Amino acid sequence: MKEKIIETSIELFDQKGFKETSVQEIVEAMGVTKGAFYYYYKSKEELLKDICISYIEDLLQQQQHILQNVEKSCTEKLHEIVYMLIRNIKARRKSARIFFREMRHLHEAHLQEIKAKRRAFRENYQKLIEEGIAKGEFKQTHTPHMVTFGILGITNWSYYWFNPDGEISEEQLAEIYVDLILNGIKNQEKK
Amino acid sequence: MKEKIIETSIELFDQKGFKETSVQEIVEAMGVTKGAFYYYYKSKEELLKDICISYIEDLLQQQQHILQNVEKSCTEKLHEIVYMLIRNIKARRKSARIFFREMRHLHEAHLQEIKAKRRAFRENYQKLIEEGIAKGEFKQTHTPHMVTFGILGITNWSYYWFNPDGEISEEQLAEIYVDLILNGIKNQEKK
Repeated sequence: MKEKIIETSIELFDQKGFKETSVQEIVEAMGVTKGAFYYYYKSKEELLKDICISYIEDLLQQQQHILQNVEKSCTEKLHEIVYMLIRNIKARRKSARIFFREMRHLHEAHLQEIKAKRRAFRENYQKLIEEGIAKGEFKQTHTPHMVTFGILGITNWSYYWFNPDGEISEEQLAEIYVDLILNGIKNQEKK
Repeated sequence: MKEKIIETSIELFDQKGFKETSVQEIVEAMGVTKGAFYYYYKSKEELLKDICISYIEDLLQQQQHILQNVEKSCTEKLHEIVYMLIRNIKARRKSARIFFREMRHLHEAHLQEIKAKRRAFRENYQKLIEEGIAKGEFKQTHTPHMVTFGILGITNWSYYWFNPDGEISEEQLAEIYVDLILNGIKNQEKK
């Protein structure tokens, strides 16, 4: 039942917005009573928190799994994280949009909890970049944090426009973006 | 007066959201009557359209100005567009957030008008990349549209986190991102 509440409300929050969706509409769409909703959630805000937390925790876990692999180079791990984020669009685009768009409606304590996890994801990414620099895979920079934000921007933005069922596959987009991140667009052969 | 309505509503829409802000609240914040509002706008939606149109038209004009310059290389123009988008954050971050977040509340005809302008901005950017490829400044790619989305993602994302009054200046961030876009992060000296 809890799963069904989350699933239904993700649809509604994405279509209509969090503020514009009432608990009444959620339970009506499910064909249950308000009592059923309030058995699982104290409020609509608590449900939003659940959606946001589960979104970011899932990403953190997948990232952790990639980073733990001692046999892979930093470049390979970078590729895997980019691919993971793009692959994630198909299953989680609506959650992602709710995450980015509705987070501001969370209570302060919940917001802080979620921001801490989002920060952890970014810091893990930055550590990977720094490790790659230390190992000579990536070039030196004084601003690894800014570079990390830039790299994140490439994939985060794709949640707004990429169609995983379109002409470019998830694998291809990951290849294109890893090449952009590693090598840039400059024609290096030109003097 | 129209300017003041726009300014006030940008503040309120950004703080509270478009749907959650009433015309009553806008006129109260300005100390005028509803009549004054409806003299300039038929509806709150029309005001939102005005905010979104003026945001994207301003960017298009600045982009056009950069692209017209026949004395600059594609690489220099790329740098100027990146810098323009980052410099724009200080003055227009709130409009940008409203643009990205509230566009879905526009009527279909208005939405199409705005999407056409947004598409024009992206297509101009893509043409610059393609011109740079043709001139040998940028390397060959079969997917200039995907690369363009990636490049746009880097700067668009910065509207969510970059503090123009922080330790890294707008000029520095533009340098960092142009280097990322042109050269990537790979240590090219390593075999």
